[in-house]
Amino acid sequence: MSRPEPVGVGVIGAGAMGAAHLRTLVRWVPGAEARAVYDADRPRAEQLGGEVGAEVSGSAQELIASDRVGAIVIAAPDGLHEEFALACLAAGKPTLCEKPLATSPAGSRRVVDAEVAVGRRLVQVGFMRRYDPAYVELRELVAAGTVGPVRMVHCVHRNAQANPDATSEGVIVNSMIHELDVVPWLLDDPVVAVTVSTPTSPPGQMRDAQVAVLETAGGALVTVEVFVNARYGYDVQCEVVGDVGTVRLTPPYGLALRSHGLDGVRVSTDFVDRFADAYRIELAAWVEGVRRREVSGPTAWAGHCADTVAAAGVESLRSGRRVLVADLERPELYR
Amino acid sequence: MSRPEPVGVGVIGAGAMGAAHLRTLVRWVPGAEARAVYDADRPRAEQLGGEVGAEVSGSAQELIASDRVGAIVIAAPDGLHEEFALACLAAGKPTLCEKPLATSPAGSRRVVDAEVAVGRRLVQVGFMRRYDPAYVELRELVAAGTVGPVRMVHCVHRNAQANPDATSEGVIVNSMIHELDVVPWLLDDPVVAVTVSTPTSPPGQMRDAQVAVLETAGGALVTVEVFVNARYGYDVQCEVVGDVGTVRLTPPYGLALRSHGLDGVRVSTDFVDRFADAYRIELAAWVEGVRRREVSGPTAWAGHCADTVAAAGVESLRSGRRVLVADLERPELYR
Amino acid sequence: MSRPEPVGVGVIGAGAMGAAHLRTLVRWVPGAEARAVYDADRPRAEQLGGEVGAEVSGSAQELIASDRVGAIVIAAPDGLHEEFALACLAAGKPTLCEKPLATSPAGSRRVVDAEVAVGRRLVQVGFMRRYDPAYVELRELVAAGTVGPVRMVHCVHRNAQANPDATSEGVIVNSMIHELDVVPWLLDDPVVAVTVSTPTSPPGQMRDAQVAVLETAGGALVTVEVFVNARYGYDVQCEVVGDVGTVRLTPPYGLALRSHGLDGVRVSTDFVDRFADAYRIELAAWVEGVRRREVSGPTAWAGHCADTVAAAGVESLRSGRRVLVADLERPELYR
Amino acid sequence: MSRPEPVGVGVIGAGAMGAAHLRTLVRWVPGAEARAVYDADRPRAEQLGGEVGAEVSGSAQELIASDRVGAIVIAAPDGLHEEFALACLAAGKPTLCEKPLATSPAGSRRVVDAEVAVGRRLVQVGFMRRYDPAYVELRELVAAGTVGPVRMVHCVHRNAQANPDATSEGVIVNSMIHELDVVPWLLDDPVVAVTVSTPTSPPGQMRDAQVAVLETAGGALVTVEVFVNARYGYDVQCEVVGDVGTVRLTPPYGLALRSHGLDGVRVSTDFVDRFADAYRIELAAWVEGVRRREVSGPTAWAGHCADTVAAAGVESLRSGRRVLVADLERPELYR
Repeated sequence: MSRPEPVGVGVIGAGAMGAAHLRTLVRWVPGAEARAVYDADRPRAEQLGGEVGAEVSGSAQELIASDRVGAIVIAAPDGLHEEFALACLAAGKPTLCEKPLATSPAGSRRVVDAEVAVGRRLVQVGFMRRYDPAYVELRELVAAGTVGPVRMVHCVHRNAQANPDATSEGVIVNSMIHELDVVPWLLDDPVVAVTVSTPTSPPGQMRDAQVAVLETAGGALVTVEVFVNARYGYDVQCEVVGDVGTVRLTPPYGLALRSHGLDGVRVSTDFVDRFADAYRIELAAWVEGVRRREVSGPTAWAGHCADTVAAAGVESLRSGRRVLVADLERPELYR
Repeated sequence: MSRPEPVGVGVIGAGAMGAAHLRTLVRWVPGAEARAVYDADRPRAEQLGGEVGAEVSGSAQELIASDRVGAIVIAAPDGLHEEFALACLAAGKPTLCEKPLATSPAGSRRVVDAEVAVGRRLVQVGFMRRYDPAYVELRELVAAGTVGPVRMVHCVHRNAQANPDATSEGVIVNSMIHELDVVPWLLDDPVVAVTVSTPTSPPGQMRDAQVAVLETAGGALVTVEVFVNARYGYDVQCEVVGDVGTVRLTPPYGLALRSHGLDGVRVSTDFVDRFADAYRIELAAWVEGVRRREVSGPTAWAGHCADTVAAAGVESLRSGRRVLVADLERPELYR
Repeated sequence: MSRPEPVGVGVIGAGAMGAAHLRTLVRWVPGAEARAVYDADRPRAEQLGGEVGAEVSGSAQELIASDRVGAIVIAAPDGLHEEFALACLAAGKPTLCEKPLATSPAGSRRVVDAEVAVGRRLVQVGFMRRYDPAYVELRELVAAGTVGPVRMVHCVHRNAQANPDATSEGVIVNSMIHELDVVPWLLDDPVVAVTVSTPTSPPGQMRDAQVAVLETAGGALVTVEVFVNARYGYDVQCEVVGDVGTVRLTPPYGLALRSHGLDGVRVSTDFVDRFADAYRIELAAWVEGVRRREVSGPTAWAGHCADTVAAAGVESLRSGRRVLVADLERPELYR
Repeated sequence: MSRPEPVGVGVIGAGAMGAAHLRTLVRWVPGAEARAVYDADRPRAEQLGGEVGAEVSGSAQELIASDRVGAIVIAAPDGLHEEFALACLAAGKPTLCEKPLATSPAGSRRVVDAEVAVGRRLVQVGFMRRYDPAYVELRELVAAGTVGPVRMVHCVHRNAQANPDATSEGVIVNSMIHELDVVPWLLDDPVVAVTVSTPTSPPGQMRDAQVAVLETAGGALVTVEVFVNARYGYDVQCEVVGDVGTVRLTPPYGLALRSHGLDGVRVSTDFVDRFADAYRIELAAWVEGVRRREVSGPTAWAGHCADTVAAAGVESLRSGRRVLVADLERPELYR
């Protein structure tokens, strides 16, 4: 008995995220073959392609069109996600598109509309936390009523150091977007209003950290701290507070040191490392979904919802006011 | 060589807090003698007086006027704090008044004005957290720049069960007031704006939990969750987040159990127990201050400031809007 | 470009461990194909074979001899490990043999001798902890001198519930054997003496828990608690104590609950779950080793060393005395 | 109503421990007055006496004989404990004698015999851990059966740095003696055998760390690590392992830092600080006992028992063998 034909995967973008996905695919996902890679920086693509045994495409379009590529991972710069997702839809090929699906709700709406026109779900958005085992179990406990009706959620999301091209808006659109997706998913309850506040930043610097207060349709209140220059490490915390108790993520498995007057755990600075299990499980589930011709993970619609909340957040950041999230009508395809 | 003459203390209020103060005084404060107790419920006063060897006064006024009473602890119901503090001032006797100093900023302003008229600080407000060893060390670390400039503070304040007479406003005026005092003290930075939000409460129930976002003059952002029906225990958390790191309170010393699939620490439901060290150190410092004819702890002005922020919080709770804290001019006496 | 020919794997034993290995191979190891399974309980083998797409062999010998099977996982009952390992050696096929390699040092010596006669390393022993990321990092830190010269190691190894056929000796030979392998590997320092003590057990019951004190050639002292009926969960702890600090494993990633007066983490009862990452990485590394015709993990010699220390432990358990570990001469093949 | 006549206390020894006791008495124990202090280093005594308002005695004998001194704290060097305790007994005055009661079982036996001759308990030994709130609660939980029948106890006792005059035997007689007292008290079960092992120490250095395995009459097994040069801080751990669960001390209340890639709690290096509550409660309970003419804490007999186990430990340290603890007949006075 032999395995089914592997899914041929092409990856657009050979930066940190694209490289991590390719290596994970090759090392841990039996049902897939890494066949093509494209990057605007060709030498970077060649180095990665050589490492994992994938050919280097001359353009994203060529990669998408290739007969050997049955499914595409989009790990290009954020500004290109929409364009490539639309191209994949036009080619009728499934894609795992890194978050955010687009840089505006209008953009992700275009992807949604194109997918609705195709009539079949092809796009999965890279909200990998939905595959993190502890988040999954957290969601199950909440659904099972372990903490009673949910009243609050407290999230903390800290990076050691921002990307050089980070912006005040990007704190929401690029970082907080993880919470904007995962919290409604955890509670099965959409976000309807956002208020973003920030401490006063030194003149000329981006507005970091930021604190968002989210309100859900079901009446829960969510606080989200995002701090992309927290220095000490990459740290993601989440506590769900219910009427009869709370449940929260614990720090990742690792080592604790007793030395120099401190007893403490080591905090990684690397988000790829922190969520390595989530990325691996995400890729395997996506490949399995490709084979079954379904999207079991976060859909283009989920990507559009998160972008819509993020846009409300950006508006709140600018205005200093509470902003209602635009009311969206969910197309039939996503029900 | 013998000890100096002890300070004769009278306690108004023989409820949980008054009894705890009296027992702590008798057991742990060498410089004081518990001489008188008053409670509207006379049998309760008699039982406590008998236990600690203090006489029972016929009225609060009688207690305050007694020659044997040199200093007064006010642990009466909140609504009486102002009246008794004014009476102590009128008698020229030092007092430790439980928080809140009054039930409105106007009330605590009257106490401040009376004290200014006396021309000497006599009133200390029972914000005992300022005496908690970990809070004290936290303040020192912040002042020393250990975490860099402070950007945010996150506070959680949970009670196992609310008092039967708790109200939505009381969540702020009675519970959150601890954070409204301790945070500006930790940062040496006053609160200038308050926004209070709440999850949706079941119809007919008080608004609990509540989440406040405080803004300080120095530009820090503070989140405060108060949840007075959190069931699992009394839990006070505080993390100060700065540019180069964070520092936070750890859970109180005690026991951890491994059993029934859990590995965890026991959470007390008793706030008197949780802050027993703080109450003891507070009382000893207060008695020492009485002897030195000074108030080294939180003054009536601090009580008025906290009441003023609390009033802004209550207004925000009602209106759903961000409320600026009234600008207060600090009298000479408190500089 | 296509992947190299996969390694065809056969698994002997369709119990919990064999099934876990097969599922992990199929789900997570691209370079392998699950081709055959054998179990004395044929329906059990058929069910598992059906699930993972592997044929069912009529006997272990038939499985080992099959042309389609290039490498074998031995997950049969302990008493059969030696026999099957010898058969794999006779067939010249690489094997991953679950621990212990044999039920006596004489048994594992026979495997070593057979492998030496073959002249090539073919056997890897299933000491999966060597692949656990935190253990790996712990070893690196120790080697880097992070804690200074090692003086002590403290290990705790608790199971929720013993197997029905567990014995007092089995506590050492089956459970403690993990520590008997991993500690010398962590320190790069062999065990030279063992003293096993136990609390008094109720009459008629096995001797559980057990505490071993190990002495290494380099002079470190190691305490090992093994308790196979610890009820609350599966719990593996390890702290290495050096001259300038200590380093230890932290609890696995997961969830913490605040409820019912406790604040704690959930402890799994399942060792396959606890070490899921280690098993996965072990299998992938083994398959990679098979392809490269090398054994990069614990060798038959490591298995023999652990069995030898275990035998000293059993002797100490029986006699109540400190027992020196037999001095072993390492064959050229394992240098 | 006034307080009862205070107990006049004299303290022999103005070193770290004596000074700490005096300051605690003056600050926190209302029923006592610090009246006299003696130290062979007279300037040191004068400085401390001036600070706390106590006169300086010309000799220990003079202090003990003074009419103004009703009870004595012995915090002199260990070698003098026995002599001063005997002198206090001869004077019929209650004493709190720091541990160890004597430097040999014969010495503490002489104290016991003298006390039996007096016919009344006058001596309390300074095993302050029995007053530590968490140890007290731990004992109550064990007695209540929370963890089921006790099978094992694991203790760790680390100092940042040894005293300059520390010796290999002193690790047991001075440091481990705390565990040798507190464990039998926790379990209500005496120690009957001791085996001490050590890692290999560098030539010319004292034998530190040490690991003792204790066996109790009831069949429990106890491991005790003592490491007096552990560098990173003062750290006392204790876990009691029973048939249905375990219970252990948590780290002391304080602060946790997130910075420089670590998330950890601060570890004090100061044992007086670590057990400040225990020392305070101990002194208050002792003074209360003096007033009631009883010894409610650890008696001379407890001191003798601990010395006897320590002597067995020292013998084991020297011989490398398991040593039975001498069987002691408890005098009527201590039943």
